[in-house]
Amino acid sequence: MTSETRAFDHDVPAGGPSGPPPLVLVDSARQRSAAEESRTLVSATHYASLSTLSEDGQPWGSMVMYVPLADGSPVLCVSTLAEHGRNLERDPRASLVVAQTGVDGDPLAAGRVTLAGVVSRPEGDVLEAAREAYLAAVPAARVYAEFGDFSFWVLDVQRVRWVGGYGRMDSADAESYRLAEPDPVAPSAAYAVKHLNEDHADALLAMARVLGGHPDADEARCTHADRYGLDLDVGTSGGSRLVRIGFAEPITAPDGLRAATVELAKRARA
Amino acid sequence: MTSETRAFDHDVPAGGPSGPPPLVLVDSARQRSAAEESRTLVSATHYASLSTLSEDGQPWGSMVMYVPLADGSPVLCVSTLAEHGRNLERDPRASLVVAQTGVDGDPLAAGRVTLAGVVSRPEGDVLEAAREAYLAAVPAARVYAEFGDFSFWVLDVQRVRWVGGYGRMDSADAESYRLAEPDPVAPSAAYAVKHLNEDHADALLAMARVLGGHPDADEARCTHADRYGLDLDVGTSGGSRLVRIGFAEPITAPDGLRAATVELAKRARA
Repeated sequence: MTSETRAFDHDVPAGGPSGPPPLVLVDSARQRSAAEESRTLVSATHYASLSTLSEDGQPWGSMVMYVPLADGSPVLCVSTLAEHGRNLERDPRASLVVAQTGVDGDPLAAGRVTLAGVVSRPEGDVLEAAREAYLAAVPAARVYAEFGDFSFWVLDVQRVRWVGGYGRMDSADAESYRLAEPDPVAPSAAYAVKHLNEDHADALLAMARVLGGHPDADEARCTHADRYGLDLDVGTSGGSRLVRIGFAEPITAPDGLRAATVELAKRARA
Repeated sequence: MTSETRAFDHDVPAGGPSGPPPLVLVDSARQRSAAEESRTLVSATHYASLSTLSEDGQPWGSMVMYVPLADGSPVLCVSTLAEHGRNLERDPRASLVVAQTGVDGDPLAAGRVTLAGVVSRPEGDVLEAAREAYLAAVPAARVYAEFGDFSFWVLDVQRVRWVGGYGRMDSADAESYRLAEPDPVAPSAAYAVKHLNEDHADALLAMARVLGGHPDADEARCTHADRYGLDLDVGTSGGSRLVRIGFAEPITAPDGLRAATVELAKRARA
């Protein structure tokens, strides 16, 4: 086991956390992989920080707009009047950090991903795809993309490091990253979570009791929704506990959360 | 003139922008310096991206919490279980990118600053000041700061590059950065701008006509406020124009915008 994977293995002065086990054993529900988490974060925004190498070897950070191609490779459009543009001309090694947006509270409890690799200038069809994707997502670039000092670059991702929050982190290899899908329900998940907690607390409690292995649950609040299931913060006789409830099938369409959640609620009341 | 300072000098295919001159010449109002802009951005948040050097020389970006000391030097608290922590142990060169928060619309029209330098482990009084400042601003760190794998670092800033938006950018030397003050009214400026536009459009129009050199103004909207003055977007007989109105004196207290703006309004109506 390398230090990369020992996410929980801090050199902690006192004892670590513990929690009550479920009263009833249930199958563990599918989670998004690190590659899926990464693709989902990268698809959620267009503003990120780029790390390049300055002439003296100093790592140089800057903010850029990027747009992912269909395989998740980020397209950049930068000027040689900016230090990062000159850096990429000189040394193609770069990394892009994308942080979860729209987060309240502790930012380190939220997601972020580092994509490290090498940039190259796209040509032919790839250049056309890169330009089209970029200008569709970054309308302001229509003004400057054709200036002589601006170039399109594509980052060939070679290494991916995802951090989902405290104690949630993993690496993904480049091939898994390219093949993974962004979660189609990510854009609607925050609204769905809010709606479930406001209007369907009874259904969430039934899910925790019947499907979550906690017949002793007296309260359940949804904290997260994705294409594979819901995370519930459940009050039990032994204390608060995080419970994952899996959907019957992975959701494949952006508007699929409602039907999948209704199916869970029906099953919990059967 | 180096390429660093030719911010407007893109290799533009067609002609650049032009605008009508003011009808009446007015003194130019003081602007925040690049060092002041940088200190203001760095003081506004605690979440930023860090660029370090990985073992193979790859620039590596990651998200961190930071807290500036009184001279603007950022304090970090990172774990050697994370790649950035191991990178800093091996090579102290790093840069921190701080982006303006709470921005609507095009992120590239908003501010960001890169602080590049070398980290070191603080000792003695500096370590105590660093720890105290960090734990006050990042309460979650009370849980992990004493773990054996976490260390405090201070970035000794050697180079500062500020970008305020399209065509607004400048470098600051390290000494200017350390000596500059964060703008005390920055936290209240967004509210003040909204209030001026909603409730005092007449006063803004009077300022544009009497103090801004545009007696032909028929509309004025405030777009920005800082300790030195207001930026107005003014409708004139020759088209729309950005006009800067300076306060009588620089504001020195966080609650000073109201009195300074009232003074401007009185002067515009005298």
